[in-house]
Amino acid sequence: MNLLPAEIIKIKRNGGELSFEQINSFIMGYSNDTVPDYQMAALLMAIFFRGMTEEETLSLTKAMLHSGKTVDFSSLAKFKVDKHSTGGVGDKTSLILGPIVAAAGIPVPMISGRGLGHTGGTLDKLESIPGFSIQKTLEEFVNLVRHHNICFIGQTQEICPADKKIYALRDVTATVESLPLICASIMSKKLAEGIDGLVLDVKYGSGAFMKTPALAEELATNLMAIAKGYGKKVTSLITNMDQPLGRFAGNSLEIEESVAIMKNEKFIGSNGYDLYEDTRELSLRLAAHMLLLAGVGKNEDESYGVAKEMLTSGKALKKFEELCQIQGGHLAMLPRPKQKLMISSDQTGFIESFHTESIGVAGILIRAGRSKTTDIIEPTAGIEFHVKIGDEIKIGDPLFTIYGEDLELLKSVVSKLRSAVNISLHKISKPSLILRVLN
Amino acid sequence: MNLLPAEIIKIKRNGGELSFEQINSFIMGYSNDTVPDYQMAALLMAIFFRGMTEEETLSLTKAMLHSGKTVDFSSLAKFKVDKHSTGGVGDKTSLILGPIVAAAGIPVPMISGRGLGHTGGTLDKLESIPGFSIQKTLEEFVNLVRHHNICFIGQTQEICPADKKIYALRDVTATVESLPLICASIMSKKLAEGIDGLVLDVKYGSGAFMKTPALAEELATNLMAIAKGYGKKVTSLITNMDQPLGRFAGNSLEIEESVAIMKNEKFIGSNGYDLYEDTRELSLRLAAHMLLLAGVGKNEDESYGVAKEMLTSGKALKKFEELCQIQGGHLAMLPRPKQKLMISSDQTGFIESFHTESIGVAGILIRAGRSKTTDIIEPTAGIEFHVKIGDEIKIGDPLFTIYGEDLELLKSVVSKLRSAVNISLHKISKPSLILRVLN
Repeated sequence: MNLLPAEIIKIKRNGGELSFEQINSFIMGYSNDTVPDYQMAALLMAIFFRGMTEEETLSLTKAMLHSGKTVDFSSLAKFKVDKHSTGGVGDKTSLILGPIVAAAGIPVPMISGRGLGHTGGTLDKLESIPGFSIQKTLEEFVNLVRHHNICFIGQTQEICPADKKIYALRDVTATVESLPLICASIMSKKLAEGIDGLVLDVKYGSGAFMKTPALAEELATNLMAIAKGYGKKVTSLITNMDQPLGRFAGNSLEIEESVAIMKNEKFIGSNGYDLYEDTRELSLRLAAHMLLLAGVGKNEDESYGVAKEMLTSGKALKKFEELCQIQGGHLAMLPRPKQKLMISSDQTGFIESFHTESIGVAGILIRAGRSKTTDIIEPTAGIEFHVKIGDEIKIGDPLFTIYGEDLELLKSVVSKLRSAVNISLHKISKPSLILRVLN
Repeated sequence: MNLLPAEIIKIKRNGGELSFEQINSFIMGYSNDTVPDYQMAALLMAIFFRGMTEEETLSLTKAMLHSGKTVDFSSLAKFKVDKHSTGGVGDKTSLILGPIVAAAGIPVPMISGRGLGHTGGTLDKLESIPGFSIQKTLEEFVNLVRHHNICFIGQTQEICPADKKIYALRDVTATVESLPLICASIMSKKLAEGIDGLVLDVKYGSGAFMKTPALAEELATNLMAIAKGYGKKVTSLITNMDQPLGRFAGNSLEIEESVAIMKNEKFIGSNGYDLYEDTRELSLRLAAHMLLLAGVGKNEDESYGVAKEMLTSGKALKKFEELCQIQGGHLAMLPRPKQKLMISSDQTGFIESFHTESIGVAGILIRAGRSKTTDIIEPTAGIEFHVKIGDEIKIGDPLFTIYGEDLELLKSVVSKLRSAVNISLHKISKPSLILRVLN
């Protein structure tokens, strides 16, 4: 009855379906070191090639979830909701929608990640605020969410330890890009938060993990199936990441943008429109769906109205300031970059496309991000985006401004950034920010 | 230029072709423990799914070959030839064709394996002869082959250490059944022997690794491509393993059969024909092709004539006795089993087929073979086959006799053996032993 690990690998290798017991015994064995790395590596590669059924993915999620603790929110009877984004360049919506939803009275227990690769991480952004601490025990986390409706922490050692171990192995065995493995990794961590509802921001485009809308929808569908399998309410927004979101990418710069938006400020660029508009709109739409899941508002329009009211009334800003206070952050002391360098266009025409992933990689090179977990981040480093797809541009008009502490480092990415923009002679239409909403 | 192991895995995973430098750096890294087991496991599984080109398989063979020493036969200017079989039940041809070819003046440097799974191993058979030692240094091996044209040893630590390490890993990661991995494993060891020619006995059928003639031919073609890539002369015989070969399977019993054949004895069974016939004929045909590669005889008929002459004249027997003497074996002291148990037919009809692999597994259960390398073998344990496919049989006629030291153990496999024979009411034709010869 109890199969050997090699026999379990062989079933998957041959295209068979694994039972929960088989998946769980493998994951538990891996967690307690009775299944060695090499057998997990072989299973991961077999999963890469054979995929997993919905049932198997659910079993894997469950096994990873149960490898550690889950947050106990039994003391908080309210509907708790979170958002997860598949990652992009300049995506700071969590910093805005968290306070909006919390201000509307709905608890948002956020366990966030650090930036890795070309996409940023919410924790790094928050830590650019001097004193902001994301080190809390799960008990402190629960208490803060209970009293303030919001708290941001990082993944603790207690949550999904099997996922942590497997993720590190996937990275060195070329098994990262596997839909069931991605889904189980994301969802086991989100389910461990003890939430009742989840809004997924699944991005597609040149700066996203999924390059096409179809792939993003496939990922969304798979993630939603797991959430539903656990009886959670879930909504997915399929959103465009063919260009960076908002005005800035970079840790303290994104805090600055988020606070400006919560202060109801605008930043009118050379093309005559507000460069905060896409960040604001995506944050509001995501917040609206979180509120809708929580029963605040009878339909998307009503929920959107509540979200907008939280923003324009200044209640979201107040909640963000409260968040900073309870987590020790001194927003007034937010550091400003010492150096900056403007990159202007050497062509005339229309912005056709961005190689957004390259822009993210340029961010890593100026230390706004990490290529490996041990890399050190410069909180003030980042990139300002002066133009968006469809904008008309002339020679000499600003494209990017690069920020940081070391001018030589900033200079080293100029040509990389310049070649990350394509300029057309013909008029280009602006892409829609939100392609679809899936329930 | 130098890729990380994870990048090399990714190329193969994505269906790309690896260069010799990439394969070699991975294998060398694995040999010297800088590439960990889990990365090799991931690469092996990716190879399982993606396969390897002929060029890649050649590179893998070369890298494994160069991970250790090769036998230096520069002191022996003659053409050296060996045979490799993909394994079967009752296959003792090496014990007969080795002496035949050596007696004809052609050196046969045989580095053999132990039995694992349902197939037997030449070393285990030789070691059933009291005193027979297969422990020789490569230097002693070269000297014995130079003076006697024959010596049988086991794989030493010096030969293809990477193959040994990879083979052990494949066993526990469900990556055994991969054509390029099988080919590179077999050929790296054979090429390390310092041979000039190789005859392959690639078996198909119910007792073979390859179940169909087409799969056996595919394996043969791939093995031959590697041999040719190394400038070796090579011939493959595609042979039938739908039933055990000869009269016995089991270590001392197979020595008994081989010696009887070299003594030109016959064993006429209940169906009126010699039960040694298939063993003798396959040994002669394989020996003929070895001699032909070595230039003894102008065509297969002439070479066959030489092989037959070596057998009927008693020269092969004399060579086998010489072999026993130089390797310390006392043939006269060959042990005989204490217990035996006859299994007779409970049906009347014609032998339609054998589940030959089950017969091999029954052999393991009575300790004639091993399911894992640490299992202990009983030299006298084995099975006698009284009938072959196509034979007419009546209720009460003998099917098998089981031999060993423990009668209870012998009884435990009776029903397994009985259900390994299918009996038909209709006449069944006998299969051909040798299907094709490939050059």
